[in-house]
Amino acid sequence: MALAYMVYPGAVHTRLHHSLGAYHLMCCAIDSLRLKGVEISVDEEVAVRAAILLHDVGHGPFSHALEAELLPGIHHEKLSLYIMQKLNLEFNGALQMAIDIFTNKYPKKFLSQLVSSQLDVDRMDYLMRDSFFTGVSEGVFGWDRILKMMTVHDNELVMEEKGIHSIETFLIARRQMYWQVYLHKTVMASEKTLKNIIKRVKYLHAMGIENLKTTSVVDYFLFQFDDMLNDEVLERFCDFDDVEISYAIKLWSKHDDAVLSRLCKMILDRNLLKVKLSSQPFSQKLVDEQKQLAKLKLNLNDDEVEYFVFTGTVKNTMYKANEEPIKILYKNATISSIINVDDALIHINNANTVTKNYLCSLN
Amino acid sequence: MALAYMVYPGAVHTRLHHSLGAYHLMCCAIDSLRLKGVEISVDEEVAVRAAILLHDVGHGPFSHALEAELLPGIHHEKLSLYIMQKLNLEFNGALQMAIDIFTNKYPKKFLSQLVSSQLDVDRMDYLMRDSFFTGVSEGVFGWDRILKMMTVHDNELVMEEKGIHSIETFLIARRQMYWQVYLHKTVMASEKTLKNIIKRVKYLHAMGIENLKTTSVVDYFLFQFDDMLNDEVLERFCDFDDVEISYAIKLWSKHDDAVLSRLCKMILDRNLLKVKLSSQPFSQKLVDEQKQLAKLKLNLNDDEVEYFVFTGTVKNTMYKANEEPIKILYKNATISSIINVDDALIHINNANTVTKNYLCSLN
Amino acid sequence: MALAYMVYPGAVHTRLHHSLGAYHLMCCAIDSLRLKGVEISVDEEVAVRAAILLHDVGHGPFSHALEAELLPGIHHEKLSLYIMQKLNLEFNGALQMAIDIFTNKYPKKFLSQLVSSQLDVDRMDYLMRDSFFTGVSEGVFGWDRILKMMTVHDNELVMEEKGIHSIETFLIARRQMYWQVYLHKTVMASEKTLKNIIKRVKYLHAMGIENLKTTSVVDYFLFQFDDMLNDEVLERFCDFDDVEISYAIKLWSKHDDAVLSRLCKMILDRNLLKVKLSSQPFSQKLVDEQKQLAKLKLNLNDDEVEYFVFTGTVKNTMYKANEEPIKILYKNATISSIINVDDALIHINNANTVTKNYLCSLN
Amino acid sequence: MALAYMVYPGAVHTRLHHSLGAYHLMCCAIDSLRLKGVEISVDEEVAVRAAILLHDVGHGPFSHALEAELLPGIHHEKLSLYIMQKLNLEFNGALQMAIDIFTNKYPKKFLSQLVSSQLDVDRMDYLMRDSFFTGVSEGVFGWDRILKMMTVHDNELVMEEKGIHSIETFLIARRQMYWQVYLHKTVMASEKTLKNIIKRVKYLHAMGIENLKTTSVVDYFLFQFDDMLNDEVLERFCDFDDVEISYAIKLWSKHDDAVLSRLCKMILDRNLLKVKLSSQPFSQKLVDEQKQLAKLKLNLNDDEVEYFVFTGTVKNTMYKANEEPIKILYKNATISSIINVDDALIHINNANTVTKNYLCSLN
Repeated sequence: MALAYMVYPGAVHTRLHHSLGAYHLMCCAIDSLRLKGVEISVDEEVAVRAAILLHDVGHGPFSHALEAELLPGIHHEKLSLYIMQKLNLEFNGALQMAIDIFTNKYPKKFLSQLVSSQLDVDRMDYLMRDSFFTGVSEGVFGWDRILKMMTVHDNELVMEEKGIHSIETFLIARRQMYWQVYLHKTVMASEKTLKNIIKRVKYLHAMGIENLKTTSVVDYFLFQFDDMLNDEVLERFCDFDDVEISYAIKLWSKHDDAVLSRLCKMILDRNLLKVKLSSQPFSQKLVDEQKQLAKLKLNLNDDEVEYFVFTGTVKNTMYKANEEPIKILYKNATISSIINVDDALIHINNANTVTKNYLCSLN
Repeated sequence: MALAYMVYPGAVHTRLHHSLGAYHLMCCAIDSLRLKGVEISVDEEVAVRAAILLHDVGHGPFSHALEAELLPGIHHEKLSLYIMQKLNLEFNGALQMAIDIFTNKYPKKFLSQLVSSQLDVDRMDYLMRDSFFTGVSEGVFGWDRILKMMTVHDNELVMEEKGIHSIETFLIARRQMYWQVYLHKTVMASEKTLKNIIKRVKYLHAMGIENLKTTSVVDYFLFQFDDMLNDEVLERFCDFDDVEISYAIKLWSKHDDAVLSRLCKMILDRNLLKVKLSSQPFSQKLVDEQKQLAKLKLNLNDDEVEYFVFTGTVKNTMYKANEEPIKILYKNATISSIINVDDALIHINNANTVTKNYLCSLN
Repeated sequence: MALAYMVYPGAVHTRLHHSLGAYHLMCCAIDSLRLKGVEISVDEEVAVRAAILLHDVGHGPFSHALEAELLPGIHHEKLSLYIMQKLNLEFNGALQMAIDIFTNKYPKKFLSQLVSSQLDVDRMDYLMRDSFFTGVSEGVFGWDRILKMMTVHDNELVMEEKGIHSIETFLIARRQMYWQVYLHKTVMASEKTLKNIIKRVKYLHAMGIENLKTTSVVDYFLFQFDDMLNDEVLERFCDFDDVEISYAIKLWSKHDDAVLSRLCKMILDRNLLKVKLSSQPFSQKLVDEQKQLAKLKLNLNDDEVEYFVFTGTVKNTMYKANEEPIKILYKNATISSIINVDDALIHINNANTVTKNYLCSLN
Repeated sequence: MALAYMVYPGAVHTRLHHSLGAYHLMCCAIDSLRLKGVEISVDEEVAVRAAILLHDVGHGPFSHALEAELLPGIHHEKLSLYIMQKLNLEFNGALQMAIDIFTNKYPKKFLSQLVSSQLDVDRMDYLMRDSFFTGVSEGVFGWDRILKMMTVHDNELVMEEKGIHSIETFLIARRQMYWQVYLHKTVMASEKTLKNIIKRVKYLHAMGIENLKTTSVVDYFLFQFDDMLNDEVLERFCDFDDVEISYAIKLWSKHDDAVLSRLCKMILDRNLLKVKLSSQPFSQKLVDEQKQLAKLKLNLNDDEVEYFVFTGTVKNTMYKANEEPIKILYKNATISSIINVDDALIHINNANTVTKNYLCSLN
């Protein structure tokens, strides 16, 4: 969860935990579907288990927070796939079916949907797990009941009618977790600052500033990597985790560049930027005032102040009505999207993306 | 929870548990408000604790399920008040402030709101407790966070802005618990049948049928009670609990009247009526068909079939927009109802009462 | 748990819960053993599941507390077996294998041991469940790990070496639950009084006293039953549960006999006898003093006082060293009893039966 | 928990969690004692809270596992005290009472006992927390009940008689956690290897080997620190955490020295030494055989093999009978040590230290 522990100290669980958890939910899902007569061969079971176990293997240090800074242009799913393909070569093709499922090319579409869809075991696990470790009870939902209410219709994953309320609560839990945790103001401030550290280091390096090297793999990804994925890059990347970044931040906190050292100390001392949220964009006047204050207080120029005062937007979408729907299977064999059921709680009116504006500043 | 254990076997918790639980939440609420500088004297604390401890003392056997049958015209809150007043006499007025709070006459209105409002500790406790004992995780919400986010403004209970999502989840949890538990089809079938047993016994007694007496207080409330509340009635009522009704059902299951004994056996053998739900009313034709089938199968006349085939409506209201609102206190000191916040999840469109039609029948 | 709720209000869980829970543990145990290569056929699985589901079906009202009073000379296991045999006839022998397992006649002895031994799923479930519902955390142990550490050696259930500490904690949890819950002083006082009510009613009936009849099956078992088990007795017994006894106690609380009505009111008003425990027997002098006090206070004669002042012993055995042992299977294939492992926590010195003397009296 | 996550992946909780948890238990303990009439002033409350919050502040990277390697001769409690004293200067003596409590010089001895004794909130928190995060249910005990059963007698912390079983379970839980977690074979193998890495680096440095520097504070503590504690050392130490060690291990895993790089890779790849435990010492013959095997397999000389094959002992003491006892206060006002109660479960015979021998080797 990157820097969410700055707000929720319990949130120190790891990607390994999540991968094992999603794997466990997949095992439960397979058992449940088989009990309902859905045919899943042993090979398919092994493949879909492997697919979920490896689905996040391409994540790098601090996960989503640094993905775009460390590996610009390379989405973690692309890396997960690259790693699976390498493993597939090593294992003489034993992972081919897992790869087909992961890339949604396998005929039994529901297997791919279990790995990735609006109702996959991936998000079931991370929501439940993040809710548990943060203590945010708004994120609780009935993952066990959802797994029991799943079935397959025309090779697609559908929910039995009895599971409607469980799905509603799942989608609302996801919305609440975004507002309360993933987009929490202080979490956001931390993660924006983390990104700004990387940006500043890259900028300083481009300007020929010395003493930025860390002797670790960080140097390669910040100063050498040319955005091309190949085996050598992959090897370095697999050796790259939070330790190197954390160590680099401690080093840079003593760097001569006042902006860089300050950004690093903000993280190390948990002395973070303040964030305001608003449904309306912030006025240019307000932003300029904040910039002026920061420039005076920290003795910054026009470029430098951008690291400390900036605006942007965050989005929270409860349900993507225009993507592959979560389908309800009624007892009379008709099918409906979850947002079209009678008296739907998740409705086209409230499922749409909510956008909020943020303003980060010194106070 | 009356007969909810017919569906959720774990739901055998008692009203004593609920009363102690609500009392505990009240203690937490008082602590939390005091920490925020709200003045609550020791006398007020004792009074509001007493009020919540006694708020449900007027409930009779099988609670809501039989309230209207056993004590027609007398709401359980009226009885709770009657009992409190009797105790107040016994205790030389020591309960007067508790009674004032319970009857919403005490100047510090927030104390009454803690006992009874759309955000009182009563429903916080029963939702949480019923969710726990049924295992229905759609009923989970953050009661502890809600208690911490409460404060007082103009003598009224309000929620801090940071608690908006906790309130949303609380209201949605309540809606889900109604659909999944309190209005669950099989729970409803059980409770309607329980009511029909009492109706049948009263009817048979009015027709002069013998062998209905149970030697217990049941006889008084079914055959003698004239709807007037007095001390003698109260004494009998306080001696009346599930045991007498349960015993009576076992007795009546062997009665000569085929309708009565069948209704009793349906409960005892958990061989219940089937329920269909629909957002549209059921056609008279369908209802008549079901009645015809039941008449043939059970050899019933036109009056008798009404005990086994009948329709009606159930209602589920997430938030009563036209009653005293749940108020949000913003940092800028403005106040808003929970349904009027930005991007409200609980909206006038989905908070309104949802009405569903049910049809109970033999199959 | 009979009257344990007098001390632990949460302890209102039922025998149905326990039976389903033990059934669930049995399913887990079967899965775990099969994963280790132990052969269990589908027929055997069904049989051992049926055996555990029915193992307690012979329990009557208030369980152990009244077993000896209502059905003198007939142990509940004998009744469970009788009921299984009746069902077996009905089901054309489908329960024969379950009966063989239940009566320890089936060749695969470990199946019988799962149902009944010093490490059976029965006690695992009740300890865990009673600990949960009372909140007594001294009763927590790792049932899931025990099930995973079980295996079979020479057709007998054994524990892998890695499970030694889990077994130790299980045995100690059982000891602690006896002291803290099952033999809790106030629980004991309640259950002794319950027994004394039945004794008093039988005595009064034998003396020709009137107005003891309840119109329920209680009358049969107290005044007619001749200790012979037959189909008619069984039918009546299966219709007999806590409701009739609870109802009878309310009736008898108004009986003319002062002893009987007082005993009943002690239960109804939770105004119980006081209990002292001691490792030494109480002196006759102390007992006599208490009797004298009670006679004066309640105006009792020498016979009557025995219902209110009496002594006896209770026993708590952590591990029965002279019965079939819990066997540990070491990696080197040797077998040892749990009390003979290196540095055993459960040792012959502390596993032996501890006997305590109790004195029940009015104060 | 240093490297316990190698066996229990959930065990990633931090010292911050523990410090906050122990602080919370202290608050509960203070409330409970005050309710019993024990006088604790507001100043004393603040002081004892500060003392427990800071009691572990002197822990360094990987805690107990590296304490003796990184700061030879300086116990973490000495460092905690040193840091408290520095803070005390900064805060103008505001921490003096906390320091007096921490160093057992404050007259109300029970305050010091809450911080450090055989029944302090420190071990209550870590046992409970480690049990929770490892999932080892043998470590569960009733911390809440223990806190409620505590009282003070002659200025010392004592337990009410009713809490005897809770104390027993607490002591046994501690014993079980040592065997199952802290002294788990694989945990021990990991931590011994971590120590050997530091030893090897120090040795190589002493031999004049290059390329060991990490550019971090690690260099100071391994190559410069002269075992004298002063303000400069303290400042460096406070900047030193798991990150630098983790980073150094990654660096050293590529070092030319085959022993060092192999030890580091054993940790990084979780390819650990095997451990055997025995109540008897291992024969020299067996140890020599293992050394010979390792020398051949890894091409090691006599000195080098000592990093991979070695023996030693571990100790587990349930209760220190010769230290300050856990005292039970009986209703008759007598006092007894927990090991002297009637039918004691924790007995002088089983409370004594159990010593086991271990042999670490390649297989």
